[in-house]
Amino acid sequence: MTALETVLEAGGPAVERLMQQVERRMESVTAHHGPALAGYSSETINAGGKRLRPLLVCLTAGVPPPESEGLVRAAVAVELVHAATLVHDDVLDGSALRRGRPTVVAAGGRKMATATGDLLFARAFAELAGGRSAASVRVLSRASSELALGELMQRADAFDGAIGVERYLERCRLKTAVLFRAACELGALAGGEPCSSLAPFGEQIGLAFQILDDVLDVSGPPERTGKPRGADLLDGTVTLPLIEARSRDPDLRALEVRSVRSEGEAAAVCDRIAATGALDAVKERALALVVDAKASLPALPERQRAALEVVANGVVERYA
Amino acid sequence: MTALETVLEAGGPAVERLMQQVERRMESVTAHHGPALAGYSSETINAGGKRLRPLLVCLTAGVPPPESEGLVRAAVAVELVHAATLVHDDVLDGSALRRGRPTVVAAGGRKMATATGDLLFARAFAELAGGRSAASVRVLSRASSELALGELMQRADAFDGAIGVERYLERCRLKTAVLFRAACELGALAGGEPCSSLAPFGEQIGLAFQILDDVLDVSGPPERTGKPRGADLLDGTVTLPLIEARSRDPDLRALEVRSVRSEGEAAAVCDRIAATGALDAVKERALALVVDAKASLPALPERQRAALEVVANGVVERYA
Repeated sequence: MTALETVLEAGGPAVERLMQQVERRMESVTAHHGPALAGYSSETINAGGKRLRPLLVCLTAGVPPPESEGLVRAAVAVELVHAATLVHDDVLDGSALRRGRPTVVAAGGRKMATATGDLLFARAFAELAGGRSAASVRVLSRASSELALGELMQRADAFDGAIGVERYLERCRLKTAVLFRAACELGALAGGEPCSSLAPFGEQIGLAFQILDDVLDVSGPPERTGKPRGADLLDGTVTLPLIEARSRDPDLRALEVRSVRSEGEAAAVCDRIAATGALDAVKERALALVVDAKASLPALPERQRAALEVVANGVVERYA
Repeated sequence: MTALETVLEAGGPAVERLMQQVERRMESVTAHHGPALAGYSSETINAGGKRLRPLLVCLTAGVPPPESEGLVRAAVAVELVHAATLVHDDVLDGSALRRGRPTVVAAGGRKMATATGDLLFARAFAELAGGRSAASVRVLSRASSELALGELMQRADAFDGAIGVERYLERCRLKTAVLFRAACELGALAGGEPCSSLAPFGEQIGLAFQILDDVLDVSGPPERTGKPRGADLLDGTVTLPLIEARSRDPDLRALEVRSVRSEGEAAAVCDRIAATGALDAVKERALALVVDAKASLPALPERQRAALEVVANGVVERYA
């Protein structure tokens, strides 16, 4: 049973119906905005991922969630912003593969991919604005600004081996956790709450998600991640596994990030990082964040708590 | 006297005060969102342009316009979306210069520029959402989607010498005119009108703006446009001057757009286009659109009509 199936079981039929509406609406966004969007991004959007963010939107609105169009719109908007950032990230990284399939930039070129990302981004706000909630637009636009600031921070810090843990965590918060947080805030708004007591939960599991993603970049295997090991290194992105490993291995401490140029060299550095035991330490840190996140959940109806815990576990299961 | 000064005089002190607020707010957006945004895009945003779109927002809200924060936010949002598209367009075109200054992509690289454009885009929606009008967000997100569709259309049609007038005009509408239209719609909303009788006026002068921009790409001079002549050709973008010239000159009809590779070759094709008289014909077409746009203005207070006509003339003056 997949994590999604488990959470749908825990959340009950109303959650399942909502998520089906989300899927249909995502498909219609790609189908109705020109051949380029349909041709290049349908895989990114439709075939993509575990829908963790839309699930968070639905589950934070209440379990069973209210069956409102605004809730579906919010869930779709969050996933479209996520898809837009994936498409642009692949342009920035020049990635050829995502989940083992060609990226939009690989299939259509970087011009097509940049415009496609812009379109997905604009459609996200169009979805949300159709729901007539200016508060929701504020939440999503703030999160979107922070996602872009996270990207800018990553570019500004590229190839800088002196990046420390605090700055790394702030970057993870900006480039990933804020959208998980926004998903919770949007769910709360759609459920009629002006602010979300679940926002810290969303932010913490988002942080864990990014940290584990960075572990996967080092550990691979490529067949599973759909990209070569050490892709972050080749891109100049210094992540927690390397930061942690540098504190354990003087040779890694002396390593110039910029000197790693080939996939073979990157894989060798990944092996060296793994040999220090840093990956287990970093993984523990992420798992502890998830444990904390679950423990910090406020008093909730049992079914809602159970479903949210399944989502939190889903973040970890990616790694297991 | 610049066109802006003329319109400020025609619009009166309330328009001038509003536009000063718009400038201050634009400056604060670049100043308060990280060193990368401040460093790379402040020229694009602060030094940039004639503010035609914010002016349209202010003037369509009424003359004198209501001195509301929502109106300033709408004007800033439109200009930020415009700035975001400029930054991304320069990435897509690989342009080194804009208005004779280094582009964001030239100064910071394409990764930085892509993320900077995303940030400006997100800030645009954040500005608008702060004004609590979901209808305004709908207008801007629809226009933003269409701008991206226009880019995608341009990429899909690149190097296609068979592009006809209708398709060219539809592309101009999507990539340029919709934002002029949205400016009018946002102004109407901020002025308390649910829909704008001035939207067709905005769309027509936007169309004229793009057509004249395409004439300038062929006519130059580079000292004035800040980019080499024929930059569109080198990018594979077939515009009305070439379409019109092809109907007049069999050699141009036989030209493979893809065969034009150097700035020298592009300049030679530009000369050939100019020699057919196509530039005058295309320019006439744009001027006729502006005349029509002014003639189509509904009954308005005299001061508002005069100010809007100055803006329409400003679109033409770029060319003169």
